[in-house]
Formats: sequence, C-alpha cells, structure tokens
Amino acid sequence: MKNVTKIALLALMLSTSGFATADHHAHTDDHATQVKHVGFSEMGEPATVLEVTSEASRALRPGEVRVTVLASPINPSDLLQIAGKYGVDPILPARPGSEGVGRVTEVATDVESLAVGQLVLLASGRTWAEELVAPAGGFLPLPDLGPIGADVIEQLSMSAVNPLTALLMLTSYSDLKEGQWIAQSAANSAVGGYVIQLAKQRGIKTVNIVRREGLADELMAKGADVVLIDGPNLAADIAKATGNAPIVLALDPVGGDTYSRLAESLGYGGTLVTFGVLSGQPATLNTGSLISNDTRLRGFWLYKWYQTASMQEKQAAFGQVIPLIANGTLKADIDSRFTVDQIQQAVTRARERGRNGKVLIVPRPL
Amino acid sequence: MKNVTKIALLALMLSTSGFATADHHAHTDDHATQVKHVGFSEMGEPATVLEVTSEASRALRPGEVRVTVLASPINPSDLLQIAGKYGVDPILPARPGSEGVGRVTEVATDVESLAVGQLVLLASGRTWAEELVAPAGGFLPLPDLGPIGADVIEQLSMSAVNPLTALLMLTSYSDLKEGQWIAQSAANSAVGGYVIQLAKQRGIKTVNIVRREGLADELMAKGADVVLIDGPNLAADIAKATGNAPIVLALDPVGGDTYSRLAESLGYGGTLVTFGVLSGQPATLNTGSLISNDTRLRGFWLYKWYQTASMQEKQAAFGQVIPLIANGTLKADIDSRFTVDQIQQAVTRARERGRNGKVLIVPRPL
Repeated sequence: MKNVTKIALLALMLSTSGFATADHHAHTDDHATQVKHVGFSEMGEPATVLEVTSEASRALRPGEVRVTVLASPINPSDLLQIAGKYGVDPILPARPGSEGVGRVTEVATDVESLAVGQLVLLASGRTWAEELVAPAGGFLPLPDLGPIGADVIEQLSMSAVNPLTALLMLTSYSDLKEGQWIAQSAANSAVGGYVIQLAKQRGIKTVNIVRREGLADELMAKGADVVLIDGPNLAADIAKATGNAPIVLALDPVGGDTYSRLAESLGYGGTLVTFGVLSGQPATLNTGSLISNDTRLRGFWLYKWYQTASMQEKQAAFGQVIPLIANGTLKADIDSRFTVDQIQQAVTRARERGRNGKVLIVPRPL
Repeated sequence: MKNVTKIALLALMLSTSGFATADHHAHTDDHATQVKHVGFSEMGEPATVLEVTSEASRALRPGEVRVTVLASPINPSDLLQIAGKYGVDPILPARPGSEGVGRVTEVATDVESLAVGQLVLLASGRTWAEELVAPAGGFLPLPDLGPIGADVIEQLSMSAVNPLTALLMLTSYSDLKEGQWIAQSAANSAVGGYVIQLAKQRGIKTVNIVRREGLADELMAKGADVVLIDGPNLAADIAKATGNAPIVLALDPVGGDTYSRLAESLGYGGTLVTFGVLSGQPATLNTGSLISNDTRLRGFWLYKWYQTASMQEKQAAFGQVIPLIANGTLKADIDSRFTVDQIQQAVTRARERGRNGKVLIVPRPL
C-alpha cells in the first residue's frame, strides 16, 4: 500500500457508485476553458515543491463528472504527505488535497448517481484545484441541506478528516457516558475543537491542554470544561481541576513528555490514544502503571480507518457529522482563504504558529 | 483495597461455599500438637523479617476445616508483598504465602463441602505453614484425579498464580490462531515455561527471549520454537527467526529496553502485555508506531483478575489448567524444597540468579 495515496483510497472508500465501464463517449461540449490546479513532482518543503498548472478543461468520458471546487482545507497530513513524511508516499507527479466540497456542473450521460447543481464532498483527492473531473464514485453527494450559506459550505469542506477523527476517537475505544471526563492535548487544534464540541453535545466533560496562555476563553466558548497549560505537574493539575474524577480517555497528537503525562493522568482502565507526534519526541513510559492502573495505550490513524471500515460504518460516521456541521454544532475556526494561484502563501500560512484556525483553498469567492 | 491482602481476596474469590455462621461448636478433639508457620510483623527484606512460630494446633470452630499443607511455592509476588513493593500492602502482623495444595484432615460437623482425605488448593493465603485452619471456603476441592504422585502434588501447588497468569495473558487480548506467532521475554521464568507449554498445546508458535546463553535446549525441550538472546537488534532478530511472521502478541515482565524492543517487534495490530518490571527501568516509546502499526499496549495483574472475574470465569480458568497440570502438559521446574523451619534459606534461594525453577515450601516429605 506504500504507493497508494490517501486520496485515491478515500475515493474508493467513499464511492457510492462503481466506475462506469461503458465504452461510448458522453455527449458533452468541448471545454476549452482554462482551469488551474496544484501539483508537485518531487517531495519536499511544500512552499518550494508545489506548482500551479493551468490547462484546458477536458471533455468528460463515460462515468465521469465535472465538479467546481468550492472550498478545500490544508490539513497537516497533506503537508506531511507532500514532504514525504506521512508513512504513505504519493506516486509522483501528484496533485495534493484530501478533502473539500464542490458543486456538480456536468455529468456524463451514463451517470445516474449525481445531477448538475448537487453539492458533493470531494473524495477523489487532488482537491487543491479549481475543477475536478473524475468518475462519479469520487464524489459523495450531500443530503439536501436546504439553502446554505458560504460559511456552511466552508465548514462542510472540512468534513472528512478532522470531524471524523474526533468522532472516531471518542467512540472507538471507550463507551463514554454522560458526566465522564476525557482529556486532550493540543486542544486548540482543529481536531481539538471538534472533540470539545462533540463531547459537549454528549454531556462528556473535557480537560483541554494547551501550550500557551490566552486560549482559555476561546476554548470555553466552544464548550470546554477545563483548560490547562501543559507542564511537569500536568497529572496533579488535572486531578485538582476535575476533583479527582477518573480520566476515562485521553487524546494526544503531541507525544513526548505530554504523552507521558497524559498516561499518568488516566483513571483506572483508562485509554490514551495517540494520533500524532507533533513534538517529534519519543515518550518515557512507566510500564508499571499499565499493570497497576490497567492503562491502555492505543493509536488512531484515519487513513487506516478509511481502508478497513465497512461502507456501513463510513455512512454511519458521515451520517453523524454532516448534520452537526450543517446545523453549526460542529464548527472549525477558519484563519484565512487563498485561491489556487496563492498556494505558496497558503501552505506557508498553514504552518505558521500564530494562525487562528484552518487555511482554506477557496478558488472563487463563495 | 489497599490493606486487603491478595491472599484474603483469593480466599473470597475461590470460595465455593459460604462462611458457616452456626454458633454451636464442632465436636472435635482438642489438638495439642505443635504446628509451625511463617509470619512477619514488619515489611522488609524477606530473609530478615520472616519468622517461624510454633503454636498449639487449635480446635475447629463451626464452618472450619483443618488442612495439612503439602506444598506451597515462593512466588516473586510473595516476596514483593513482604517487602512492601507489591502495590497492595499486607495488614501487619501477616502470614505470607499465596497458594499451595493440602489435604483435609478434619472438618467441623457443619461442613458439607469438604471431607477428610480430600486434596484441596489453598485459597486462604498464609500458606507457608505446616497446617491451616480456616473456613471451608478458603479451600478449593480438587476434582478426583485418581492416584497421583508427589510430583503432581508439587505441580498442583503452583496452580493458582503462574499457570493462570500464562493462560489469561494468552487468551484475554488476542484471538490467537494455530500457526500464529507470539513472543515473550524472561522466557525461562515459571510463567514463561507455562506460556511455552500452553502455546504448544494450541499450535501457537513462540519466540522466547532470555538474557543469557545456555537456555535454548531446555526451552526447546519444553516446546519453544525460537530462543533468542535479548539485545539492541532484537526486533530484527525476531523478524529473521520467524521469516518476518507478524508477532500477534508479546508478553513482557522485564520492562525498560526489552519492553521497547518488543513493542517494535509486533506485527500490525499486535498487542504487548506487560506483567512485571523486573528491570526496574522505564521504557522509551516511539508513539508513532502506535499510529502506523496499530500497536496496542496493555498490562496484566492477576490480583485484579481475582477481584473482578466472575465465579464462572474463575471456574473456567481453573478447569483449563488443573487437568493439564495433572496430566503433565503443564509443568514447572522445581529448584529446591525447604521445610517451614528453613524459610530464610528458602527465600534467599528464591532470589538467587543461578537457580533452576521454583522454590517450594514442603513441610514434610511427600
């Protein structure tokens, strides 16, 4: 699987119709319009290796659909993949972008699963582009959400990665009950925000750990119960803040000391789920606590979930997050928007420390 | 639970009859015989704090049973508990010993669950003694095993701790299938031997890791498939020895570097179970492998299992190991035997590196 992009897999996983194999040509007009997309022909620093290409829009082949990209986020995993640090390398040359939302502008005559005008999630990858042409299976039709604004369209563009990560980590390891406590590091990340919102919605209380002052108000506004600064006394700070409530589940994308401290903070039988190593550091583990405290250590990788979950599981997961995104319960902060042309600025901004939310590629004003 | 001894809990867990509450006295002869037992009134170095006491055998009270102790092992957990390093401290003064086998010599008139002459497992604790007087529930009658020799009696005395640990670790975390591979460190320990034998019986292949040369023949004779010396290249050595077979489960009582290496050796989705920290060292953990390799880290503590397993689960577990011990499939090496009087020599020997198996307390020649 090493050389299969996450993108292409997402396409297969989400596909609701097979790839059409009829050999007649769809009766479509010739599209001479120029459309732009982002690509890279070597792995490396995103701001250096990414290039914008403009090419003539091509006619549809049987089974294909043309979709105008409305919005697509820059996720940390996208940048890792471009840099060749994701664990699964792209086949070069490649086109980046793993999720987004678009509107169908044309369908091949043999396509029945999608119609012109429909809003779709982009499950075909290559989403940092103005337009996508791909088999119908690469697009997941959204349920009819009524009239929706630009803000909801932007939020929907971020459905497939972070909200699913948050949902699956909350539901796959512990049978969390109302009133129970969980903890998470990097709580001011996009996933962190979704975890707070999903937990709040279920009556689960959250200890939110961040690395700097000044974030408490913002996280409290999202529904956080406790916000703490990471440090050597984290376990004691958590115990104090929760009145010694057992921490049933902890989520950590940081690793290193933060991981070790979260492991110490768990209640008896609690689970620590790692889903990133932002610190780049190994963790030191007192393995005795796995025995005496029945500590359980696990990892979560969305990529693998897309590979292994059944279609029913996927539909169930999307079925939970899409309505919550559409009604505003799940919402990520957006830092800034860039066009396809501005990709270098976009990826540079996406890696800046001071930013306040996601960076989106929005090809045309919504 | 801090001050409840493991011993007393074992008694409650295994009890097959309630405590009798009738207030009449059993009609028994006065026992003026002197019997010896081991005790300690402060926690510390076992060879220093353990004392032998001789006292007159007392008459039975209602519901009680008198049992002659035939054999009782010295387990590492016993020594840890005497030293106050087990996580659950004894109530002082205390009498050590957590398992063994004995023969019923007298029962109170109201006791119907046991009969004179029956072989029983000692589930009342205080087993480093010549005789035990305790409520009937503190003894677990063995099924009729026909005529058995001294060797089987000695093996049965070690039923409740190490064979159950091996069985439960093999069955609680992975659904192991014939032909699959597991790995274990300290493979020349008593638990290690039971793991080899139980795995062999189930067609599961074992990589056995030890810290010194010269143990391979002995472990191969028990059924080991591969024996390796621990070292920095352990993961590569395991891969080579198994032809890159995925390691589904690894068992580790060592901790430290050995733990880290075993974590690296697991196949995708494999589980590492820690059940001791013989090295006294913390482990360094590359948490990224929990994500990319779906590594699962757990701990096992028999004490907690006795606290939480249902009576049915306990009966099922004993029902699996007792027949295998009786027919010789499960067998631990015995290094040496000591009387109650020789307790200092016994515990000293039990901690010596060069010994070859368990040290038993055998009050009288069997």
